Amino acid sequence: MPDQKPVFLVLGAGAGIGGHVAKRFAAGGYHAVLARRSDEAGLRRLVDDIRDSGGEASGKLLDASLPDSIEDLVEDVERSIGPIHSALFNLGAQIGNRRLEDTTYKAFELGWRLATFAPFRLASALLPRMAQRGTGSLLVTSATAAVRGNAGQHSHAAAMGGRRMLCQSLNAEFAPKGVHVAHIVIDGPVDAPDTLGKMLGDNFDAYKASKGEDGMIDPAAVAETYWHLAHQPRSAWTHELDIRPYTDTPWWNDN
Amino acid sequence: MPDQKPVFLVLGAGAGIGGHVAKRFAAGGYHAVLARRSDEAGLRRLVDDIRDSGGEASGKLLDASLPDSIEDLVEDVERSIGPIHSALFNLGAQIGNRRLEDTTYKAFELGWRLATFAPFRLASALLPRMAQRGTGSLLVTSATAAVRGNAGQHSHAAAMGGRRMLCQSLNAEFAPKGVHVAHIVIDGPVDAPDTLGKMLGDNFDAYKASKGEDGMIDPAAVAETYWHLAHQPRSAWTHELDIRPYTDTPWWNDN
Amino acid sequence: MPDQKPVFLVLGAGAGIGGHVAKRFAAGGYHAVLARRSDEAGLRRLVDDIRDSGGEASGKLLDASLPDSIEDLVEDVERSIGPIHSALFNLGAQIGNRRLEDTTYKAFELGWRLATFAPFRLASALLPRMAQRGTGSLLVTSATAAVRGNAGQHSHAAAMGGRRMLCQSLNAEFAPKGVHVAHIVIDGPVDAPDTLGKMLGDNFDAYKASKGEDGMIDPAAVAETYWHLAHQPRSAWTHELDIRPYTDTPWWNDN
Amino acid sequence: MPDQKPVFLVLGAGAGIGGHVAKRFAAGGYHAVLARRSDEAGLRRLVDDIRDSGGEASGKLLDASLPDSIEDLVEDVERSIGPIHSALFNLGAQIGNRRLEDTTYKAFELGWRLATFAPFRLASALLPRMAQRGTGSLLVTSATAAVRGNAGQHSHAAAMGGRRMLCQSLNAEFAPKGVHVAHIVIDGPVDAPDTLGKMLGDNFDAYKASKGEDGMIDPAAVAETYWHLAHQPRSAWTHELDIRPYTDTPWWNDN
Repeated sequence: MPDQKPVFLVLGAGAGIGGHVAKRFAAGGYHAVLARRSDEAGLRRLVDDIRDSGGEASGKLLDASLPDSIEDLVEDVERSIGPIHSALFNLGAQIGNRRLEDTTYKAFELGWRLATFAPFRLASALLPRMAQRGTGSLLVTSATAAVRGNAGQHSHAAAMGGRRMLCQSLNAEFAPKGVHVAHIVIDGPVDAPDTLGKMLGDNFDAYKASKGEDGMIDPAAVAETYWHLAHQPRSAWTHELDIRPYTDTPWWNDN
Repeated sequence: MPDQKPVFLVLGAGAGIGGHVAKRFAAGGYHAVLARRSDEAGLRRLVDDIRDSGGEASGKLLDASLPDSIEDLVEDVERSIGPIHSALFNLGAQIGNRRLEDTTYKAFELGWRLATFAPFRLASALLPRMAQRGTGSLLVTSATAAVRGNAGQHSHAAAMGGRRMLCQSLNAEFAPKGVHVAHIVIDGPVDAPDTLGKMLGDNFDAYKASKGEDGMIDPAAVAETYWHLAHQPRSAWTHELDIRPYTDTPWWNDN
Repeated sequence: MPDQKPVFLVLGAGAGIGGHVAKRFAAGGYHAVLARRSDEAGLRRLVDDIRDSGGEASGKLLDASLPDSIEDLVEDVERSIGPIHSALFNLGAQIGNRRLEDTTYKAFELGWRLATFAPFRLASALLPRMAQRGTGSLLVTSATAAVRGNAGQHSHAAAMGGRRMLCQSLNAEFAPKGVHVAHIVIDGPVDAPDTLGKMLGDNFDAYKASKGEDGMIDPAAVAETYWHLAHQPRSAWTHELDIRPYTDTPWWNDN
Repeated sequence: MPDQKPVFLVLGAGAGIGGHVAKRFAAGGYHAVLARRSDEAGLRRLVDDIRDSGGEASGKLLDASLPDSIEDLVEDVERSIGPIHSALFNLGAQIGNRRLEDTTYKAFELGWRLATFAPFRLASALLPRMAQRGTGSLLVTSATAAVRGNAGQHSHAAAMGGRRMLCQSLNAEFAPKGVHVAHIVIDGPVDAPDTLGKMLGDNFDAYKASKGEDGMIDPAAVAETYWHLAHQPRSAWTHELDIRPYTDTPWWNDN
């Protein structure tokens, strides 16, 4: 018997925003499907957490850079679990600051492949299904690099700038068909052990302390905003918003 | 005995966004103070509605273009009802499309006085109090004219463009003090009898029908988003977002 | 006998951008009319410089904040010198950084009066004349504060944000009538003794030295860009551009 | 004996903007190197035109989507003709409006390869050389799709949005080293037989007539603006500007 719950799918389900949004949707009555590239044990923990709280969840390891990986996942989930009502694309492509001479073609292409092409592939596989059902939402986590390029951000900014324009293009085609696309600019450091935590390593605790209380974005708080976006009535949809800690300088301000 | 509930103040409390947000905050446990320029009976109805639903509310007629009106209101509310925890500036200054030659100096100045200077006055009276308390939020309803000027919008666009930059400036000073300023771009027609309804008169119903089901922004839906914004934890604040019906073309797209 | 040269009018003709643009237009065959608020000797020097180089110029002291001052100037120039083919609005309203509590209502209103209302008045007096002639251009010097608000910039950002949206609104109405409106974001310090020089006083030389060679915007270079804009063929008009020294960080970047 | 003229290189040298800019730089004293993908006869005509006018020019057929093509061209030109002082990246990736279901992965990737990766490759090959010489400029022709996505523009908008953020990122790294990067948003139809002309075929003349006199962007006019940008003194550089005919509605306006 197929699952009767609406399905929520997240690509990029680490212990930060991805995992917390999955948890929030499961708590709200969705079957959450969590997909990530590696760390089977970490993925298992996230799924078990949700189940232990009485929610429904599935996990899937998947390399989004490989052909057919995203397409097959969408197909599998829709067939074996149920129609995907809401999805979150949560893969980033931050590789730290690198001078142009140190930005290889391979790194530049990989940035595009993960940050621009992968959401296009997810959209291609998923949005026509949602459009046919007349309802659905696609949330896209994005970054400051989507709205301004900075020194050393050649790969990241190009990939994220493409992502943002893609989201506007998808929204223009699919909003009138009842499918809500939202582009969220995360404009500050996220308290996320799987991404920023790994980048900073042993320095993560010191960095966190330096930001002060509530000085890093709490992914659980972000999850509430994502939940809100995905449930705005269709007469009042938001396409783009920014999120940062109260202590952080917005990208447009002097530092 | 002073009121123990947190206080929510709205300037521009008609039967559209202003009234619905007041209702939402009252339902959420705030004492809602509704201020508007005219129509005592309409104001009374809004306040009674809230009270009938078990909420707390007060009403006040007030001409925001007059000296001291906003300042005295803030002072009065803080003294007689309690500290204002959250406020909504909801006055617009749309006067319809007018060619430059038909845009009088008086109309241009009034646009500024209501749409740029009035929120500055509210901020001047209120934000330092909130900063001293280390918490609070100011929501500002804005319009597409804040992000692009159009033919015939000389007065409105200049006033709203000023409003948006003011909000960024206020945010830069007050966010680090724990005060959340949010600027909301309403990029579509609101199903609001007191504003758009009055502008269109007898044509309102026909216009509404032409937009189709959910083709006009439901102010009750907007109220949920405002409530969400005002209650984002300080580690994850949004400064700017847009709202429109799913059927409406965003301002940046071709029509 | 009326002057046969096309007329160029600048409001805000100090020794920085305003004076240099006047000089450039005079060199290019215009009769330059230079208007500024004070410093008759300084104005005289600018006019004499132009005349000594074989150009035509007139000077006028004028307080743009006073009623009818701008309107009368346009009327006078058009009647006594000739049709204004191109104009530059070059008045700023930077008052330095001030906390909200230190930003008086008077300062906020004066910012609007000089930076938003004054260009609206110039446009109202001038653009319909240009539209009737089917040709003309209005250049508007603007500032970073027109595109982002910063802490302490409450008055300046609100005024400049209004200016930018006004320019877009004017462009939308008047471009199809053959009148070119351009909004130029000066995003760096100008080597201008009359404005930045006066603000910094004795520290100006030290500041300039600290910026290094070519580290401050040369107003003569800006004048070439303004000249170029005013003479773009109507099939290829620019509405907005930014200008800064090569050493300066653009406003959208981290510092 | 090596050529003593400064060298100007254009990728995408058709009979529109690319060819006219090459002509303008040759007239201004540069040796112009024109590279394009196909139409050897057309390329020959452009080169001969320049030579017949007394200018210096070379032509090169080159498929920018192939590995090493751009890199080898830069290397060849620098060795056999001289240091490239200024370059224009003028390749577009407009494929017309296509629904998401009709936008193949191949088309999406090709858009990126030509419109985002190719300018990155040019920058990688060229900007470090310019930085070492402490001077140079890279002009990048861009499109409205770089600043907003539209329905059917999934491939184009993603590619151009990436291009714009790349340019900001390059500017942030290279401006302080004396290399000027400019991103020009062409926001209207160009009177270009090789691109728009080919897209419209027999309808080109009717389309052109429908736009009225000066209703299409004259590439010769654009060439003057590009020339101006490439020769702004380094104290007053422009990073981004827009160009459209006076009759055309800017992208941010209602149509």
